[in-house]
Amino acid sequence: MYYFDNGATSFPKAPGVAAAVADYIEHVGVNVGRGFYSEALGAAGVMLDCREKLQRLFNAPEGFETIFTMNITESINVILKGYLKAGDHVIVSSLEHNAVMRPLVSLERRGVTFTRAPFDAEGALEVEALSGLIQPNTKLIMVTHASNVCGTLNDLNRIGELAEAHGIPLVVDAAQTAGVMPIDLQKNKAKAICFTGHKSLLGPQGIGGFVIDKAFAAMVEPLIEGGTGSRSDSEAQPAMLPDKFESGTQNLPGIYGLNTALDYVNDVGIEAIHAKELQLTEQFMNGVRDMEGVRLVGRHGTENRTAVVSIDFELHDNADIAYLLDSEYDIKTRVGMHCAPSAHKALGTFPQGTVRFSFSYFNTEEEIDYLLESLRKILA
Amino acid sequence: MYYFDNGATSFPKAPGVAAAVADYIEHVGVNVGRGFYSEALGAAGVMLDCREKLQRLFNAPEGFETIFTMNITESINVILKGYLKAGDHVIVSSLEHNAVMRPLVSLERRGVTFTRAPFDAEGALEVEALSGLIQPNTKLIMVTHASNVCGTLNDLNRIGELAEAHGIPLVVDAAQTAGVMPIDLQKNKAKAICFTGHKSLLGPQGIGGFVIDKAFAAMVEPLIEGGTGSRSDSEAQPAMLPDKFESGTQNLPGIYGLNTALDYVNDVGIEAIHAKELQLTEQFMNGVRDMEGVRLVGRHGTENRTAVVSIDFELHDNADIAYLLDSEYDIKTRVGMHCAPSAHKALGTFPQGTVRFSFSYFNTEEEIDYLLESLRKILA
Repeated sequence: MYYFDNGATSFPKAPGVAAAVADYIEHVGVNVGRGFYSEALGAAGVMLDCREKLQRLFNAPEGFETIFTMNITESINVILKGYLKAGDHVIVSSLEHNAVMRPLVSLERRGVTFTRAPFDAEGALEVEALSGLIQPNTKLIMVTHASNVCGTLNDLNRIGELAEAHGIPLVVDAAQTAGVMPIDLQKNKAKAICFTGHKSLLGPQGIGGFVIDKAFAAMVEPLIEGGTGSRSDSEAQPAMLPDKFESGTQNLPGIYGLNTALDYVNDVGIEAIHAKELQLTEQFMNGVRDMEGVRLVGRHGTENRTAVVSIDFELHDNADIAYLLDSEYDIKTRVGMHCAPSAHKALGTFPQGTVRFSFSYFNTEEEIDYLLESLRKILA
Repeated sequence: MYYFDNGATSFPKAPGVAAAVADYIEHVGVNVGRGFYSEALGAAGVMLDCREKLQRLFNAPEGFETIFTMNITESINVILKGYLKAGDHVIVSSLEHNAVMRPLVSLERRGVTFTRAPFDAEGALEVEALSGLIQPNTKLIMVTHASNVCGTLNDLNRIGELAEAHGIPLVVDAAQTAGVMPIDLQKNKAKAICFTGHKSLLGPQGIGGFVIDKAFAAMVEPLIEGGTGSRSDSEAQPAMLPDKFESGTQNLPGIYGLNTALDYVNDVGIEAIHAKELQLTEQFMNGVRDMEGVRLVGRHGTENRTAVVSIDFELHDNADIAYLLDSEYDIKTRVGMHCAPSAHKALGTFPQGTVRFSFSYFNTEEEIDYLLESLRKILA
């Protein structure tokens, strides 16, 4: 199998992830914050270790905390639905995933409004235009770090500077970048960064979260309430973090897996991972550029982008190309809207969508050669 | 380690669970509903298989669907917060876990009211009293199948009959019973049953869900919205099940693990599992009955109960007993409120709590003997 759908979920995972998850299930097993015997305290230690690694990964300032969720979609819902109230206005990029857009469209029924920021020819948010969009009731700027459709990066540091100057919290969707692009909360001034464990962090599906400024978190109502193992004598959800947002038994196997994956990412280094991925991306983009009917969507160069490349095959049905790649060449891609109709409208690929090729650190030059050769045969 | 904290999470898990999870992470890895290549369809098949096993386990009628969540707390929040509106009234048992009480107390601020049903000396909901609690605006009856504090079972079939007669949906919290007590949706007439994978279903932490009547589900707004891999061209959450309630990447390793655990539970048989657990429970209860200062909380016999036994050590601090059991005898129990202050108030053990002993199919007579002997030494 030739796997180029790493934008959906990375595969393979970091070495040791499966073993760490299995080892937890087989040999640790206990819950955290429920029993206070020694084994439970050991598992709590791993959980804390994992939180701290994530805070370091994002260079979180003092006063930030890591919250675990099932996936980044839950993270984003918790923040948007817990923070926004009737009458509030939000600014988003035009390249947002439905993990942002569906909650926002739903919140419109509760009196929340939003504006999509303008974007340049390559899809990036036009930072200069942001100030003009701010209204007296603008309570949040929510942007994706990188488009899941075309890999274009937004300039978080400039957006964050502007947000801070206007006193508006910035929240970042780092689904496509956590683990592969440097993210620095001290530079981008974001109040929360939402991540998922199973993409470039190379961990298992089922674990995500957010790293959040505690003062900002105090303004966010919890979406899911219940047993936290703390303040068990009270029927009110505790206000302290992380408990406020972590009700019920957490995905401990997933946390053990993510913890191992973070060690791998840190050992190899984000810079090395990104450099390798970009090298493969460049090889691929250079290879397809001369093919007939290939329209590269979004950023054409390798600056300020991730290893996600979308192609609109103008002479074919995109679904046919993806089908032939899979059935004839065992090549896995993703075709369609990628859960981001907003982005496709911005990029001019709605409603036909694109075929998305997304590479990982574990792909090889030979695999890209095979992919290019296969594409040439299909398009011939 | 002598593990008697199976009410928090079962340990060990069913044979093969860790291997199934690791095998998915290591060898399958792909996402579901995102790519449409063959491997993704295979994983989708396992997911569907797991849904169907759960529907069969609960003898769900036609027109029910399984929804996956991270844990049963999320399941309960989705239903309570998605279904109840300002002005609605709910009836709950007096033995509810905070997974029910904390969302309800939070919903009070949005104009939802609730009544705790009366209970008998052993903690069971008094079904005869239910009719008198029903108000014109009563929109839901939500009860736990078994108390997580003392193991007392509620009579679901009678409660469901009464709920149906009044046209009020019944929703069941089966955290403590799914996998070990027969639950029959065709008999108890519940509109939804919430379960967790990591207790008596013997699967991993991080996976839970609910089996729900589709007509009832149509009245429940989704709590978490986002990418579903379906209707990707729309920024509105799809109304179809299970997508409506399953946004973002699901915990596929957890689903593979749960699927394997369900095979084990079905192979051994719920009756055999329950019989074995009750035999251990009886052995334990008979052993402690003559010990000085031991107050057994809740049901004293082995009828209509689970293998969860709570003791209030009247001559000691309960925390000391649990601490000594762990530190001197490597025996794991849980002490305190068990996230259920409401139940402790009902049972007369608030605020001191209890020491909870919860047994599993994998415990042995010899382990119970050792536990009893250790308790005798501590109490001597």
